[in-house]
Formats: sequence, C-alpha cells, structure tokens
Amino acid sequence: MATPDPAGGLLQADLAHWRSRTDATLAAAFDALEGRTEPRLLAAMRHAVLLGGKRMRPLLTYAAGLACGADITRLDAPAAAVELVHAYSLVHDDLPAMDDDALRRGQPTVHVAFDEATAILAGDALQSLAFALLADAPVPDAARVSMLAELAGAAGAAGMCGGQAFDLAATGSAIPLDALERLHALKTGALLRSAVRLGAIAAGADAAARDRLDGFAQALGLAFQIRDDLLDIEGDSATLGKTAGKDVAQDKATFPALLGVEASRARLRELAARMSEALAGFPGDTAALAELGRRSIERAH
Amino acid sequence: MATPDPAGGLLQADLAHWRSRTDATLAAAFDALEGRTEPRLLAAMRHAVLLGGKRMRPLLTYAAGLACGADITRLDAPAAAVELVHAYSLVHDDLPAMDDDALRRGQPTVHVAFDEATAILAGDALQSLAFALLADAPVPDAARVSMLAELAGAAGAAGMCGGQAFDLAATGSAIPLDALERLHALKTGALLRSAVRLGAIAAGADAAARDRLDGFAQALGLAFQIRDDLLDIEGDSATLGKTAGKDVAQDKATFPALLGVEASRARLRELAARMSEALAGFPGDTAALAELGRRSIERAH
Repeated sequence: MATPDPAGGLLQADLAHWRSRTDATLAAAFDALEGRTEPRLLAAMRHAVLLGGKRMRPLLTYAAGLACGADITRLDAPAAAVELVHAYSLVHDDLPAMDDDALRRGQPTVHVAFDEATAILAGDALQSLAFALLADAPVPDAARVSMLAELAGAAGAAGMCGGQAFDLAATGSAIPLDALERLHALKTGALLRSAVRLGAIAAGADAAARDRLDGFAQALGLAFQIRDDLLDIEGDSATLGKTAGKDVAQDKATFPALLGVEASRARLRELAARMSEALAGFPGDTAALAELGRRSIERAH
Repeated sequence: MATPDPAGGLLQADLAHWRSRTDATLAAAFDALEGRTEPRLLAAMRHAVLLGGKRMRPLLTYAAGLACGADITRLDAPAAAVELVHAYSLVHDDLPAMDDDALRRGQPTVHVAFDEATAILAGDALQSLAFALLADAPVPDAARVSMLAELAGAAGAAGMCGGQAFDLAATGSAIPLDALERLHALKTGALLRSAVRLGAIAAGADAAARDRLDGFAQALGLAFQIRDDLLDIEGDSATLGKTAGKDVAQDKATFPALLGVEASRARLRELAARMSEALAGFPGDTAALAELGRRSIERAH
C-alpha cells in the first residue's frame, strides 16, 4: 500500500475547504434574495449554480490569491462572482437557440427543469449578481473597482461572449489553428484567466506577480479547452454528465479535428511545461495552482 | 402665434445635448471593441442600442446629476451604463421565448435582424459592457463602487430581472393591484429609479437630496408604466413603433385592465402631483427632472 502523501492530503483538504467556502458564499447570496424576488426565478438561479460542478474558477481565485498572500476572506466574493458568470454562461449556452443541451452534469439544464424564459432571466440575473457581490467585497475601493473592471472585461464582448460568438461563427466551417486558439482564448480562457487575476488583485499583488500568474493562467485556459475537446471524443456521456460526441455531431471546430488526437496530446504536454515554468521560483506557495493546472490536463470530465 | 418660451427652448437644447452625449459615449464604447470581438456580435450590440430610442434613463441621470451640481463629465458613464442595461433587457424581452416581438421602434428586433443565438449573446455582452463603463467612470473610487452596487442591484433578481419574472408568472392570471404595483416597481421602476440614483451618486449628493430624488423617481417609474399600459390600449402600432394591443392579446396584467381606463388616468394625475411635491424646494435646478416627469405621463409612444 502506498504511503499517503501528507502534502497532497493537505492540498486536497484546502481545495475542499475553498469549494465549501464558495458554496457558502453562493448560498448566502441566494438566501439574501429570498422574499426580494420571484421564487421560481430564484429557484432557477440556484439550480444553475449547482450545475457548475467542479468550481474550477473559484479554486483558481483562492489558489492565486493565497499564493500572493491574501487573507482568505478577501477571496470569497471574487471566487463566487467568477463562478456566477460561469454558471450564467452555461445556462444561456444550453438554450435551444444555442447548444440545445438537455443535460449538464447528469442534471436537467435550466430551461428543461424550468422553461426557456426563466432560463434567460436566471442567466441575466446571475450575471448582475456577480457584479453585486464584487461591489460588496471586503477589500479597498481601488481593488474593488479593479476587480469589477477585470470581470466585466473578461465576461463581455472582448472576452467570453465574444468567444461564444466566434464559436457560433466557426461552427460548420473550417477555421485555421490561430483562429481556433483565439476563439478559445476568449470563450473559456478569458474567464479562467480572470479567476486567477481576481485572486491576485484581491491580494494586492504587484505587476510582476500578476504577469507571472497570467502566463500560467493563459496556458491553463488553453489546456483546459484542448482537454475538453479530447474528452468529447474519448469520453462517454455517463462520465461527462453531458452528451459526448456533440462537437463532431455539430461540426464544431476542435483541436483534435484540426491537429489530430496525437498532436493535441503533445500540445497538452507543452502547455503543462509552460505552466510549470510560469510557477517556478514564484515567491508564494503555488502547490494548489500546480495541482489545478495538472487537473486541467488530466481531468476525466 | 404663441411666443416661444426661452426657458423651454433652453431645456429642449439641454435634453438634446444630453442625448447626443449619451450616443457619443455609447458609440465610443462600441468603437473601442472594434477588432477585439466578433464583428456580427458587435453589429448586433449596436443595433440593440439604436432600438432603445428615447434615452429616457440617461436623460434622468443627467437631469438628476446636474440638479445635484455634478460636473457633466461625471455623468456620461452612468448615463450610458443605464441605457446599456435597458437595451440588453429589450433584446432579451423580445426573444421568441419571452414576448416574441419582431418590431421595436419600427425596426426589426435583434433576433429578427440577426438570429436568436446572437441576440442572447449581444444582450449578455451589453450587460457586461454597462459594468465595464461604470468601472471606468471618472469619479472617485468610492462613488464608482457605489454606482456599480446600485446598478447591479437594480438590474438583477431583486430589480428588473425579478420584475420580468413576476410579469411572466402573472401573465394569464388575475393578480391584485399591490402585486401589479410591485411587479412594475421592479420591472420598469427599478431601472428608472436607478438612473436617477446614479446621477445623484456621481454628483456626490447627500442622503437627504438622494431621498428626495428617490421619491420623485418612484412616482415617475409607476407613472411611466401606467402610461405604457394605456398606450397599449389607445395607441396604434405605427405611432408606438411596436405592436399595439399585445398586452390584451397576451392576457397581461395591466393597470387599465385592473383599475379601468379612467381610474388609471386619475392615478397618473396623482403621481404627477407626487413628483411635483418631491421636487418642490429642492436646492438645485429641477426643471429638466420636472420635464421628464411630465413626459412620462404625457408621452404618445
């Protein structure tokens, strides 16, 4: 029997703790809306956030913020805010007019569990709530403004929404590799990168530290998407909790389609090396960031 | 021939000037996204903002802010931000799953001119852009945070989105007058009120001034909606630029349906009196606010 790795055990405990802090912040934000909104809308918002699942983005915010020496209480609001933006994007993405997905993590998507109109409104309200949480974060005003600007930029037309629009435009047509990388740098990359930046901003990290972490986050974002594309080919729907093989069925541009499976895997190994380099010699404790980087490459769902 | 009223003429010039400042701020925000997002998404965002039309909310921000002595340059970002939230809500409201409207101000709605997926994303990106503009407003950090918290609250589940959810829930069923007032206080009222508050916050107004203006804005918001309900019955589609008679056709709860037309008109007169009272003796110049209050009651579209 292998000896348990105490550092690994502590790390797992940290990640579980951050996940539960995220869930507690989100639950408190929803509880604060009780009696102040329409009950079915609030139920749909809660449902949406449960579908988010892994809490990868909040974990990145905690990992980055703590690596930069932040007090953990400063990280709760940005961690929850970035998850709210992620959750709203999934709700809108799953709509019939978009990806038309009925399942997410094995659960009915919001428009299936509720209805389309409620799903549209719930997504909209989750986005507003993300900014409301940030505006209320217990950090100095300058850091709050900076986090708000960061998340608004990452979520909007020059970030996540723009990436989704490029994805729509690319579906069914052949695009070159650089266009695919740009698409994903916006579609998934912008928010993953923002998660790391929000942690660094909340910590009051200097520009040099922020740049180092940004290099890490850029590599992680691309790796995350390449792994996603590979899982769509290799995975089965039960493990994924969503419909496997959808990319091919919808004729989506993907890395395996463009590069082949082997070259996509080689690309993942390169990105793993870039992540390690970015973290090498970083003054704070980067074990959790490294673990999240590893997961982005090795995850099975 | 009546002698032209010089004060009225100046007031009209002020309103025209504020409208053009709003359009210029919005145009600059879109121009700054050129080359940084997907072109069709950006075109849809521009189209959405053109459909907004009267710019009632930005005018309220300028009128309130200037009444509180703000430098006008402080008001451009909040005025444009509140219009962006309004514009995004129209785009999502017009979707087939919501009100299913093909026309807005005589123009094709965004999902008709583009497609549903683009309309969903354009609405989402307009909301993010609203917060990005506020985060970049040339006011002290504390005022920026306060404006961001204000708009996020007014737009979200306990504001506009909540009102729309109450509206969905009420369609086809009889609701009491207090529930209808609550519905509209959120659905249209929250954002109109927020427009006034944003101006006051940007001006650094004290709590007493803010409360006075808030009483005005509450009355205006309700009047605006009662007038809207009356126009749906009395107006024709050409003047309205949208389909008249839709509320009745969709069996929506409205003030005329609940109170009757005459009592709804009497209610408008009461609200006009409440607006006048709220502004009486206000230390700043409230002529523009009074004019916007009058328009909310007398407008023909």
